[in-house]
Amino acid sequence: MNTAAGPTRRVGIDVGGTKAQGVALDLDGELLATAHRSTPRGDDSLGPLIDVLVDLADELGEDGSVGVGVPGLVTRAGVLRAAPNLDGVADFEVSRLLSERLGAPVAVDNDATCATIAEWQLGAAAGTDNMVLVTLGTGIGGGLVANGAVQRGINGFAGEFGHMVVDPDGPRCPCGRRGCWERYASGSGLAMLAREAATGRRLHDVVRHAGGDPQAVRGEHVQAAAREGDPEALAVIDEFARWVALGLSNLTNALDPEMFVLGGGLAAGSDLYLDPISHWFGELLYQPHLRPMPRVEFASWGPLAGAVGAALLPTLRQWGM
Amino acid sequence: MNTAAGPTRRVGIDVGGTKAQGVALDLDGELLATAHRSTPRGDDSLGPLIDVLVDLADELGEDGSVGVGVPGLVTRAGVLRAAPNLDGVADFEVSRLLSERLGAPVAVDNDATCATIAEWQLGAAAGTDNMVLVTLGTGIGGGLVANGAVQRGINGFAGEFGHMVVDPDGPRCPCGRRGCWERYASGSGLAMLAREAATGRRLHDVVRHAGGDPQAVRGEHVQAAAREGDPEALAVIDEFARWVALGLSNLTNALDPEMFVLGGGLAAGSDLYLDPISHWFGELLYQPHLRPMPRVEFASWGPLAGAVGAALLPTLRQWGM
Repeated sequence: MNTAAGPTRRVGIDVGGTKAQGVALDLDGELLATAHRSTPRGDDSLGPLIDVLVDLADELGEDGSVGVGVPGLVTRAGVLRAAPNLDGVADFEVSRLLSERLGAPVAVDNDATCATIAEWQLGAAAGTDNMVLVTLGTGIGGGLVANGAVQRGINGFAGEFGHMVVDPDGPRCPCGRRGCWERYASGSGLAMLAREAATGRRLHDVVRHAGGDPQAVRGEHVQAAAREGDPEALAVIDEFARWVALGLSNLTNALDPEMFVLGGGLAAGSDLYLDPISHWFGELLYQPHLRPMPRVEFASWGPLAGAVGAALLPTLRQWGM
Repeated sequence: MNTAAGPTRRVGIDVGGTKAQGVALDLDGELLATAHRSTPRGDDSLGPLIDVLVDLADELGEDGSVGVGVPGLVTRAGVLRAAPNLDGVADFEVSRLLSERLGAPVAVDNDATCATIAEWQLGAAAGTDNMVLVTLGTGIGGGLVANGAVQRGINGFAGEFGHMVVDPDGPRCPCGRRGCWERYASGSGLAMLAREAATGRRLHDVVRHAGGDPQAVRGEHVQAAAREGDPEALAVIDEFARWVALGLSNLTNALDPEMFVLGGGLAAGSDLYLDPISHWFGELLYQPHLRPMPRVEFASWGPLAGAVGAALLPTLRQWGM
């Protein structure tokens, strides 16, 4: 640590279900280094997880400025209340435990909030004071900036867009309800739409990409067939895009953002999705003659967004955010 | 006007489709006086509307602090872009026109935003920094406060909750889409649910309150029968309450507010609605074991909320809101 002169770099770590991704930025936000480790799994993995975070912070040259993004509901005090993709987490005090090991304060926030900060401060939404990040991965997460400030809500749980119900008679969601937005507009949603189409219609090319089994179809098989120009795969993507746009339209009614940034694993197929999403967004937007359509762009930072935003957390906390 | 010493009272006017309601508050927010006029209708009614607003402001003793709430999409500069319930409005410069007549600046905002400000500053949500107002009237409007600031969005159009789609195969909405929240959870939604029940089932008591014609059933007939304890009317209210709660749950996922305030015309039946709405909200809340359920209360200011909030607008503008 280098407390006398203040930190010379900003280290951020994004803890995912399978790996912990770290970055070091200089004080201007330039990327200096990246590093990653596997996320420890199984019972009693939380002690080893802290070890992994200390190890990553050391490798990245931590000298007093560390932020961590974690996948789940995080309180303002940096306690991870629950995380479906991390084993054994219940009221896990990431901030306190890691601070004690590093001898420096550690800012902790939700991973999607971190990705929001990265895209807002240093990415696709730089210069905007009103933006919404939507991460399209296995599920849907997100975050929001309004009036030039990150909005976390009273418990720090704002931005859980994936469980907004868009069809109360829709398919059952693991959360216990029906027709959550992420049943349709996420990676698993794309796969479900494709499996439905593969059962009801033909979708030969997509099923071929899935090894011949309609029930094995995943989003990547739809993408592969669509890239070959298969019209049935493109129709599935069009249907998927309509569900994405429906949620963006709903969020526009609530929040009136200047732009949406789309992140998460599906951002890798942005060339396939962006045009149909924009088309349907235009169709579904409320009173389009009275307002510009919010811009829709895919995230700049890709899989590093969470770590980059985590690195910026200590600075935002200094600003009172 | 009393510019030397500054205003001694705050005048607010809420322009509705049928009447313009005015209030005068003292500088501590106490209600000093109310007054109202009919809203001029028909072609060329905008000149007479400005006359009515000048007249009301005079009667209420305006001495330099005036705010106006209007029903529609309002830009940050106080231009009413469009208002379905006011005749002939298109880019109506309320703020400039009224300022010129009164010789004082006039703050203008959306009526639901004004009601939000009233309930947040002086009503049911006083003391809260994160709240959402939902007005249940003919349609659904609303507004939001996050991080201790009114959030208007980039165009000033935030809070248009009524047109969030909750069922893409639902009934057609006048906005051109299907299954908007206000098709179910507003006064017209309650009437639709009741007419459906009256056609499909019996609902004798409700139809009797509507003069014997199932197609004439409105929300008030359901309320009347429910107050007499009619179980079929109570079942319709329970279904209505489930739709209200579905939207509150969706907004909780996005915004994580501390509380919801329910306003609008249906607030008059709050004794019938509050318990079933709270019940269904508890059922539909995402991860209820990890978070307190947001409080749900009906508005304190009733039909004066818009005018009271309008009266507070100039002060909020001074605070940069």
